[in-house]
Amino acid sequence: MYSINRFELYNPVRVVYGKGEFEKSKEIFGLSNVLVICDPYVSSSDYFKSAMSRYESVFVFDKILPNPPCEIVDEIIDIVNEYTKKESEFDGVIGIGGGSTLDTAKAVSALILNGGRLSEYLEGKKRFEKRLPLMLIPTTSGTGSEVTNVGVYTLNGIKKPMTSPMFWADFALVDPVLTYSMPRRVAATTGLDALTHAIESYWASSTQPYTEGLALRATKMIFDSFKASINGEEWARDEMAIAATIAGIAFSQTRTTAAHAISFPITSFYNVEHGLACALTLPSLIRWTYKHISEKINELVRYLNFNDANELALRIEEFIEYVGFSLRLRDYGVMEDELEKIAKISMEARIIDLTPGKPQYEDVLEILRKIY
Amino acid sequence: MYSINRFELYNPVRVVYGKGEFEKSKEIFGLSNVLVICDPYVSSSDYFKSAMSRYESVFVFDKILPNPPCEIVDEIIDIVNEYTKKESEFDGVIGIGGGSTLDTAKAVSALILNGGRLSEYLEGKKRFEKRLPLMLIPTTSGTGSEVTNVGVYTLNGIKKPMTSPMFWADFALVDPVLTYSMPRRVAATTGLDALTHAIESYWASSTQPYTEGLALRATKMIFDSFKASINGEEWARDEMAIAATIAGIAFSQTRTTAAHAISFPITSFYNVEHGLACALTLPSLIRWTYKHISEKINELVRYLNFNDANELALRIEEFIEYVGFSLRLRDYGVMEDELEKIAKISMEARIIDLTPGKPQYEDVLEILRKIY
Repeated sequence: MYSINRFELYNPVRVVYGKGEFEKSKEIFGLSNVLVICDPYVSSSDYFKSAMSRYESVFVFDKILPNPPCEIVDEIIDIVNEYTKKESEFDGVIGIGGGSTLDTAKAVSALILNGGRLSEYLEGKKRFEKRLPLMLIPTTSGTGSEVTNVGVYTLNGIKKPMTSPMFWADFALVDPVLTYSMPRRVAATTGLDALTHAIESYWASSTQPYTEGLALRATKMIFDSFKASINGEEWARDEMAIAATIAGIAFSQTRTTAAHAISFPITSFYNVEHGLACALTLPSLIRWTYKHISEKINELVRYLNFNDANELALRIEEFIEYVGFSLRLRDYGVMEDELEKIAKISMEARIIDLTPGKPQYEDVLEILRKIY
Repeated sequence: MYSINRFELYNPVRVVYGKGEFEKSKEIFGLSNVLVICDPYVSSSDYFKSAMSRYESVFVFDKILPNPPCEIVDEIIDIVNEYTKKESEFDGVIGIGGGSTLDTAKAVSALILNGGRLSEYLEGKKRFEKRLPLMLIPTTSGTGSEVTNVGVYTLNGIKKPMTSPMFWADFALVDPVLTYSMPRRVAATTGLDALTHAIESYWASSTQPYTEGLALRATKMIFDSFKASINGEEWARDEMAIAATIAGIAFSQTRTTAAHAISFPITSFYNVEHGLACALTLPSLIRWTYKHISEKINELVRYLNFNDANELALRIEEFIEYVGFSLRLRDYGVMEDELEKIAKISMEARIIDLTPGKPQYEDVLEILRKIY
């Protein structure tokens, strides 16, 4: 018997998935003059040049920074305004890259039409009311940014998430060919991010049947293809691209939980890649939350054809070690007396309350000690 | 290993589910002057009166016909035009009822602004370019019309489906309280419709991971709550309301397959309710398609915690008999020498080609003979 009192679901992004679809982006987007935000690696590729040759005019900005500072978005706007004064206006914005690039494109598409500086919107002084048509094209299979209404920006050195109805793109164009060149390490850490999205969305207390179904399916696809994907097998990269997008749609409704909350300080202080930082606590969290939602986890386990919840946790540990990463925080430069600080900061992320069983400070500390 | 070359997914409907949410429709819709399309049973209820009292002005049209003829939509437009000449314009349209009512509301919301007669659009002579804001509120748990872009209308005595981007509603407001008064027979036949949507979307050759996940989850909810729902238990009506909407989102992307194709002549010639007509062939189709997609059906079976595909088929037969319906076509007035005609007409529905294994005329005839 299912018990949920109320839920909403809304995701207006049109997803187009297909090998080679990047070449058809012009026909799909239906626009002529586009501003493209990407990284230099993307813009120098033949695949990019071929796809872009179909547009009438393309203005490329390829000096993207990770965890985009507000200033870089403002800088792009200034450059664009200079350009459009002399040349024609843009019909739309295309972001091609990882999460940071797609988030930058979201902010640019809105800021162009709304005016002002990004910090004003990030601080809640202004709201985006409109944006240029927006197409997001991921080159990694992890963040899900192409199908969420969230962007993460850095203001005065601090990463801040921002939600806006203007951040739902018109198109998420998922072409797995763009992910074939991901190095093993990037495939692994972004894949672990997608796996964490799927499992956290599945068990979040904000869950609902729509997201549960998506999370179930995404989790299975990731377990079926993770290892082959990090070994570069194309069929597996295809599966991971789909799974990451589906997991993104799921957590676009539910948000994430403790694994993400605890990952934030681990990434900030020890520079551990986001997806890996998330996955480090995931096995322990599976064992911890199992006490609170055993029936629900058993349903997932049965669908995955595993024996029990412990096997689910063990498989994730196996993935982490298969890539060559350690399961122990000590190996990432964490000192034992810093665990309390990590636990304290984790508790500040409000998403931690969406974890089944609502872990308290002591619970988080215990989980951190177990993997120290 | 998953193999899919290309898919699109798009469903921009904002779904709000909750017990008692109908009372808050004004706040959710955010409009003041509304045209309401419903049936007399709905418009005479206290729940309706209470919910509508919050609007500034409400114009109710409650003379809905099943399988709405084009003429009824045109008639509503004429009445509305007369009314708005004297009074104010409408801000939006609300449809409250079963599939026929929601389909009527879809057409009215578009025709008001585009002008002309519905038949012109149904015959492809004109296209809807805009519509009034639209909220759809189902009172049965079956058709999924609240979350699809399809409407079915009758032109010159023939039912014709029509797809339009204007038929995606702004809101699907799913309040299970509205389904509590469904008679046992309606709960059963609409529930069987939802079950068929879920299973057909799951196995359709047009499937994709997004719809598979939704179909999996919806199927499980229906198996968990079908019997209790037809017995009027409220928790089960809640589950069925959610499941029918989720199954609707799934088949809004994939369409349906042979069970629907074969149901059309059975309903037209023998007046068998749509959901029942679909479910009659579903068990045989499960056994038939199993030969073609055994692994995929095994995944569903494992998630449902059944032993095998045959148990899946048997459970559906058990549902049909539990309600008091026969499993045999002969009991619905079908003559044995009419099976060939039924098979022939079934083959005319193009969705039959989406069935795994692509059944031919002889296969359909064999399935019909098995349940004769």
